[in-house]
Amino acid sequence: MKLYDLDASGNCYKVRLLASLAQIELEVVAVDFINGAHKTSPLVDLNPLGQLPILEDGSQVVRDSQAILIYLAGVYGGLAWWPAHAQGQAEIMQWLSFAANEVDHSLCAARLVKKFGAELDHLQALQKSALTLSQLDKHLEHKEWLAIGRPTIADCAVYPYVALAHEGDVDLSPYSHIARWMKRLEALPGYLAKPQ
Amino acid sequence: MKLYDLDASGNCYKVRLLASLAQIELEVVAVDFINGAHKTSPLVDLNPLGQLPILEDGSQVVRDSQAILIYLAGVYGGLAWWPAHAQGQAEIMQWLSFAANEVDHSLCAARLVKKFGAELDHLQALQKSALTLSQLDKHLEHKEWLAIGRPTIADCAVYPYVALAHEGDVDLSPYSHIARWMKRLEALPGYLAKPQ
Repeated sequence: MKLYDLDASGNCYKVRLLASLAQIELEVVAVDFINGAHKTSPLVDLNPLGQLPILEDGSQVVRDSQAILIYLAGVYGGLAWWPAHAQGQAEIMQWLSFAANEVDHSLCAARLVKKFGAELDHLQALQKSALTLSQLDKHLEHKEWLAIGRPTIADCAVYPYVALAHEGDVDLSPYSHIARWMKRLEALPGYLAKPQ
Repeated sequence: MKLYDLDASGNCYKVRLLASLAQIELEVVAVDFINGAHKTSPLVDLNPLGQLPILEDGSQVVRDSQAILIYLAGVYGGLAWWPAHAQGQAEIMQWLSFAANEVDHSLCAARLVKKFGAELDHLQALQKSALTLSQLDKHLEHKEWLAIGRPTIADCAVYPYVALAHEGDVDLSPYSHIARWMKRLEALPGYLAKPQ
């Protein structure tokens, strides 16, 4: 099973993190992102959106990090990381959306500016980051994990861009509940450290 | 089961559309959005992100339109709209992400500018809309539905902002496969017309 990957991508890291935690073996294929290999054949035939990560499992191809999390957790992770009941799936989905919306538009955007020179509004990204982090911190005040009382793909989806926040000059120090949640996740067997 | 709703919201329409198609009864509660009722108690206690829609099903509260789609389809829709197998769920998730990312940043953004006066770049939203629609059209060239060969919550998630594209001055006329897909969806029993 191949993961077409960019090491520096937080979205790719979501997948590598889950695979490592859930002991799912992946062949990680580094993609020549700088030269746009993801925008040309053969990769663009696997994912017409021209994005990474892409998972190739025999004839099955899955694009989009959140979809890959569901695929890996659901097909290879037992019920540990993605439960079978829709109530739990919906609870987790709230946090996949939080990763795709709130986190993407704030922490991820700030990092894109500072690390990759993206032409986005860094000040606005910092303001949104403060709101996003305060929402996350409040949620974690009385909870150990984001959803259903145990580590799931919700945590794998939200953790990466929080762990990489410093690369966007986002200060995590005010958020003590987030800090404790990160420590819990980092203490799990199989934890994979963030890209440097 | 209550849906806290804003009629003009495409995200709320996703939920009403599924409920209507799947014959799931909802008590639709119109929220005084203009006066910020979603940002104050009691609604902000249900959804600390201060957003609509919110679903309240007894003691269970679900925020985020895509999470509500999974909840309703999974808990009340049998296996028709959200399958039990992770392969199918992941295939659908790709399109929930397409709705949250590609569609949101293009068609939805264009509509926010034209209909609600949002301070976003309309020209950029139109350019992104053309790309998003061409990707969608290509996908539908040889497919009747977005995922797993039948109508699912993937279609319910992507259809609304496509159907509302004209309100953002986005031209759908070049996309014949999208047009046929929309007609198929609009012919389903229980189809609920878009907000006017």
